[in-house]
Amino acid sequence: MLTNLPSTVVVREASLRDGLQSVATIVPIENKLAWLREAYAAGLREIEVGSFVPARLLPQMEGTADVVAEARTLPDLFVSVLVPNLRGAEMAMASGAHMMTLPLSASHAHSLANLRKAPDEVVAEVARIRAARDASGSKTLIEGGVGTAFGCTIQGAVDPAEVVRLVGQLLDAGADRISLADTVGYATPDVVHDLFDQAVRLAGDQFWSAHFHDTRGLGIANVLAAMDVGATRFDACLGGLGGCPHAPGASGNVSTEDLNYLFTSMGISTGLSMEKLLALRQRIADWLPHETLRGVIWQAGLPKIYPFASTTPAHA
Amino acid sequence: MLTNLPSTVVVREASLRDGLQSVATIVPIENKLAWLREAYAAGLREIEVGSFVPARLLPQMEGTADVVAEARTLPDLFVSVLVPNLRGAEMAMASGAHMMTLPLSASHAHSLANLRKAPDEVVAEVARIRAARDASGSKTLIEGGVGTAFGCTIQGAVDPAEVVRLVGQLLDAGADRISLADTVGYATPDVVHDLFDQAVRLAGDQFWSAHFHDTRGLGIANVLAAMDVGATRFDACLGGLGGCPHAPGASGNVSTEDLNYLFTSMGISTGLSMEKLLALRQRIADWLPHETLRGVIWQAGLPKIYPFASTTPAHA
Repeated sequence: MLTNLPSTVVVREASLRDGLQSVATIVPIENKLAWLREAYAAGLREIEVGSFVPARLLPQMEGTADVVAEARTLPDLFVSVLVPNLRGAEMAMASGAHMMTLPLSASHAHSLANLRKAPDEVVAEVARIRAARDASGSKTLIEGGVGTAFGCTIQGAVDPAEVVRLVGQLLDAGADRISLADTVGYATPDVVHDLFDQAVRLAGDQFWSAHFHDTRGLGIANVLAAMDVGATRFDACLGGLGGCPHAPGASGNVSTEDLNYLFTSMGISTGLSMEKLLALRQRIADWLPHETLRGVIWQAGLPKIYPFASTTPAHA
Repeated sequence: MLTNLPSTVVVREASLRDGLQSVATIVPIENKLAWLREAYAAGLREIEVGSFVPARLLPQMEGTADVVAEARTLPDLFVSVLVPNLRGAEMAMASGAHMMTLPLSASHAHSLANLRKAPDEVVAEVARIRAARDASGSKTLIEGGVGTAFGCTIQGAVDPAEVVRLVGQLLDAGADRISLADTVGYATPDVVHDLFDQAVRLAGDQFWSAHFHDTRGLGIANVLAAMDVGATRFDACLGGLGGCPHAPGASGNVSTEDLNYLFTSMGISTGLSMEKLLALRQRIADWLPHETLRGVIWQAGLPKIYPFASTTPAHA
């Protein structure tokens, strides 16, 4: 463990999607755009900016096309969006997003409750999206995001072999990228270590991101375990926002600022400015006055031994 | 990493010492005794029950001899106390505690501020305590507890080589056991991994406990890193109480109940009852109405996939 740390990792900011979809507050488009620009200014270069879902289902996600348009003006920003199906994928491709993520629940029960499809029907949808993408000439990449990979609140256990099977199916169906998510905070470091090891080996360069919730305090430990077997890209939300509207008690992604502290305190470069992340966290707290933000580094402060050089964004 | 997990670990409960010394509230002796008995009933079999320090300095620690006396009536309970010097050690031996811990600060500056002695003077005190112990025929073990092993708020960095040197000096001076502590929440998993590896190799069977604060969210990850190189005993405080009165911002030991979740969710036996730990946490919240308790598992609840069998104490 920890004997072969990467020198650089990527933090993919998910607060504009996973964060906002979990809160009751509707954030006006001008605040979303400010949120996006300040995240970019803090050094974030991969941002999931929203979902192409019907506004009647998730009014928080209204205006995603406008956020993508703004995001596409920011140099070197890799812009991703979540899409539930082919219809959403068509909107994502039209928007010019660099990547669209189709969520798949490895838990059959969660998949039916959340997506109204069995996991293999989602795989079939990925194949349809791939065909449509290739026919259109669009360059938008397709990410298969395997959620509830460590269990779910409805079904309980999810067999790791089923997760690995679905990763293979998604690749076969034409997904360009694969990610694994602990949607409800059930993952433990030992299982993370085993399952990411298998998924990273299977997907190779197509393995993309590790997505952990910190519901039960193991988020950072799970990041460490995934990094130990080769994961180098991690989803996070400023202020630990996030959750799944269909997974009770799932709230709380790993917080971006705490994750940045984990990495940079170990000398792993993220390209992020801690100062700017914390300033944006404060603005988000103002924009979401009824939400409880999480994370600890904003309160504890940086230690005297913190490598201050790395607080300067690499992209500055 | 995580390929050679221990089947069993020991959680040493430190809330009656490290927890209470950090709070303003003076807990009456009857509540301390109830706290002790309920911790025992939850399965804890190693408890640090107090300090033998002058009551004028730490009035929270008054009555430690009475707590030790009660603790000695509980079958198979290993009772430890903190002592600042030979005078305290004499009281500890007279009380019948199984072990007395002499804290040493690896940070020279923190040592002077906290203990008014340089680290090597503390080593000399351990030698005097060892001589007095052996002369008296007492069976009380001597633990050298190396604090600020990962840096401190006064001095900043602490050289790992200095920590290893002090471990060697403590062993040479006659310490029976050695522990390492991140007194102020500065430790990171990579440094923990390296330093515990060296300390465990050097102290062998005399290596005792790993003590982490969760000030900056890395407590659980640090436990994982220490366990990966052979640590099998971990200090913790119910409700994440704790801190060092001489280390500003140091508050928050790893919480006993969250640590128990980490271990048992990975199938590692602790012998603890989660239900009883959480019930005691609630009583502590009542006893300390002005303190903020920490930890998350009490709020998030156990996942559906939690191995319920392990909630029954092995000692029941």
